[in-house]
Amino acid sequence: MKLNLVASALVAAGLVFTVPAFAAEPPAAAKGNQPSDHEIKLIKVTPEYWRVVLDHPPFNIFGPETIPQLNAVITALETDPKVRVVVFESAVPGFFLTHYDFVPPLSDSTSIPNGATGLPALPDMLVRLSKAPVVSIVKVRGRATGVGSELSLASDMRFASREKALFSQWEIGAALVPGGGPMARLPRLMGRGRALEVVLTGDDINGDLAERYGYVNRSLPDAQLDAFVDAMARRIARFDKQSLADIKKLVNENSLPPDKEIQEGWDGFIESVKRPAGQKNVKALMDEGLQVKPDVEVRLPYYTGKLDPVP
Amino acid sequence: MKLNLVASALVAAGLVFTVPAFAAEPPAAAKGNQPSDHEIKLIKVTPEYWRVVLDHPPFNIFGPETIPQLNAVITALETDPKVRVVVFESAVPGFFLTHYDFVPPLSDSTSIPNGATGLPALPDMLVRLSKAPVVSIVKVRGRATGVGSELSLASDMRFASREKALFSQWEIGAALVPGGGPMARLPRLMGRGRALEVVLTGDDINGDLAERYGYVNRSLPDAQLDAFVDAMARRIARFDKQSLADIKKLVNENSLPPDKEIQEGWDGFIESVKRPAGQKNVKALMDEGLQVKPDVEVRLPYYTGKLDPVP
Amino acid sequence: MKLNLVASALVAAGLVFTVPAFAAEPPAAAKGNQPSDHEIKLIKVTPEYWRVVLDHPPFNIFGPETIPQLNAVITALETDPKVRVVVFESAVPGFFLTHYDFVPPLSDSTSIPNGATGLPALPDMLVRLSKAPVVSIVKVRGRATGVGSELSLASDMRFASREKALFSQWEIGAALVPGGGPMARLPRLMGRGRALEVVLTGDDINGDLAERYGYVNRSLPDAQLDAFVDAMARRIARFDKQSLADIKKLVNENSLPPDKEIQEGWDGFIESVKRPAGQKNVKALMDEGLQVKPDVEVRLPYYTGKLDPVP
Repeated sequence: MKLNLVASALVAAGLVFTVPAFAAEPPAAAKGNQPSDHEIKLIKVTPEYWRVVLDHPPFNIFGPETIPQLNAVITALETDPKVRVVVFESAVPGFFLTHYDFVPPLSDSTSIPNGATGLPALPDMLVRLSKAPVVSIVKVRGRATGVGSELSLASDMRFASREKALFSQWEIGAALVPGGGPMARLPRLMGRGRALEVVLTGDDINGDLAERYGYVNRSLPDAQLDAFVDAMARRIARFDKQSLADIKKLVNENSLPPDKEIQEGWDGFIESVKRPAGQKNVKALMDEGLQVKPDVEVRLPYYTGKLDPVP
Repeated sequence: MKLNLVASALVAAGLVFTVPAFAAEPPAAAKGNQPSDHEIKLIKVTPEYWRVVLDHPPFNIFGPETIPQLNAVITALETDPKVRVVVFESAVPGFFLTHYDFVPPLSDSTSIPNGATGLPALPDMLVRLSKAPVVSIVKVRGRATGVGSELSLASDMRFASREKALFSQWEIGAALVPGGGPMARLPRLMGRGRALEVVLTGDDINGDLAERYGYVNRSLPDAQLDAFVDAMARRIARFDKQSLADIKKLVNENSLPPDKEIQEGWDGFIESVKRPAGQKNVKALMDEGLQVKPDVEVRLPYYTGKLDPVP
Repeated sequence: MKLNLVASALVAAGLVFTVPAFAAEPPAAAKGNQPSDHEIKLIKVTPEYWRVVLDHPPFNIFGPETIPQLNAVITALETDPKVRVVVFESAVPGFFLTHYDFVPPLSDSTSIPNGATGLPALPDMLVRLSKAPVVSIVKVRGRATGVGSELSLASDMRFASREKALFSQWEIGAALVPGGGPMARLPRLMGRGRALEVVLTGDDINGDLAERYGYVNRSLPDAQLDAFVDAMARRIARFDKQSLADIKKLVNENSLPPDKEIQEGWDGFIESVKRPAGQKNVKALMDEGLQVKPDVEVRLPYYTGKLDPVP
């Protein structure tokens, strides 16, 4: 049996990483990230206040199987007549949500059609979340890398654990261009210089720095984070849904990137996956233990920083 | 006699809140906010350096009678050949400038024609202040809510008392959309996430947080605020009026919202005033003592947060 | 012999400051800023990681002779197939890079043709640096005033010494409009209010405040600055040049000012140089010892703040 490692399950057909070392048996990597139908749990605290729990241990890796689950949540947020506010959070210690799954066969992903915006499925969902007539809040503990950072950036507000949150767009370390919109969203939040630092160093930004940079609204002491976000959500849940939606729409008009920029970012990602440097670096990281060894997932910038230089 | 409480004196004719409890005698609420011809005082410290003092105790509520007074000041700033810099400040302890007056009859406001920009009178004045060939600075002590926040945001620079300043766009708590431009101005100052927090929670932002969010240039210890702003104003007052105006115009080109966004925000406000949720919440707040009881004005987010949830 | 002092060596022909006091002998001012062929040194730490050292003692004043030297560096950055990252730094204690040289005859500057972008030579180089397919970092110790601030703003990232960095756009103090783009770049980094403070007060912004305002990515303790920037540069130097360039280009798309705004700023500068207020203030500063006396260069805002008020 051959294992097809793809740099992303969303890439064009034919982009296959062949990893002979893994060919004899089911990949060890896959054990670390068993797909599940319940990676994303929706909890209706009240009809007006929902929680979305990301629960895909051990690393909260986002894979092709996660897409329809997240899509169902976002569609519900778009159409439910009652919901005012949703809080995204993780049930997995150490990880809010991290990078895309490099293990599943390509066909698991390319079979997912483009979304309502005309964008590919992942950026489509993020764009729709930003435009939904409901207030979205992420509460970040642990690593928010890649898709985790991009989901955060697509949400309306971000609150982080001062001690436990880590944000990064790690992709450049794998010789990849991020695909979920950070080049479009980060400069509008924190200015060009800090945005370039995030996407060109691929390094971690902790809770304190994330607040200073404007990556998050605020970082709070971990012990206060839950109560703070819950109180804010309950406050918003009492308010007029129509006025909330109207206010958000007016803010969106001048603060969201045009879909065109999101598409261009996605195209850049696809191009980068095709290049030899991306294929080589992803394979090297898998060889190091990405998706299997906790230390590689936990200290991801360390491992991307010690790969062989790209010639 | 019937008392017509209007959610705003600027709303379209026919939007009337009838409050039977207040019908037998002059409204108690009105006692708290007696209109005056001298709510806005202009002091020429020198021909180049002016101060505008907001002096409408006990709460510095902004009403229809305030509009021509503020308009006279802004027209003077637009046309005076000498003035370089103006500082806005309050003479009322605890309040910089707060929300619109909900008491006066509608005709007091609808009789005010649109301004030079073609926008309604209040947003017209704010837009003209931003574009005036003079440097405007707000020095904020106490509550800057609603119109008070919007005047601050329309000014060129904002300096706040670390201990005594409070900023808010409280309107969502009354089921209203803010009318004076914060959806257009806040994201350009502090990014989408923090702007959404301000306008979707309607909660207070104190001096420290206002600085961290970029709501103000800086917050200073209250004891240093006057000397700091005065020194800055005196410095600017020595400079070349033409170069000051040219520099400001070039900054405005990329940092001011188009008038269209201001108009859309105003339209959203008018729509929200017409909706039952807005009418119900404003009445409920008046019943609680808005415009009369100091505690309601001082702790406004507490009172908006305990209104009955909007169904 | 007549000494032609020009407010900028790039101004249109015919704008001449005649300073009779200096007519009898070579100007003392010129002694402070002897042009050199080696004001800008390029050091290739590795083929992927370059350093550019600004070395024009005693004040790192930028003159017409500096333009071709900087242009050679920027052209190399645009075209070299290997370089990923460049760090700009100063070899002159107390000065990163400061204002334009007011001493040389006009013809030294007007003989420099417009650059590849069609903009005049100085803003052309800055615009090209922002768009170059290489990551540019400034490491700021000492005064970054005028051109020094503008070079910083045109770079991709800015890191400052907490104790030793000073940023300013001092021009308004000389009754001039800044010519190198800060009205276009600053509001996009720090919002309109803080940008207006920088360009309308002409005052110094130290390392701490520069970080709080977003003028720089971060300010670091001086003792840590070199190691921090070097580690970041070495990290980036290992990454894929194509992906770095693609990511930067996508960020640039929404975060760089259009060239039109840069041209308008330059035009505003030229107009201001022609006005009597600018000519008078520059002469007064030269009389005080600008370009000669260290105290005038070190405490520039103090000296601009005590000039006679512009009538």
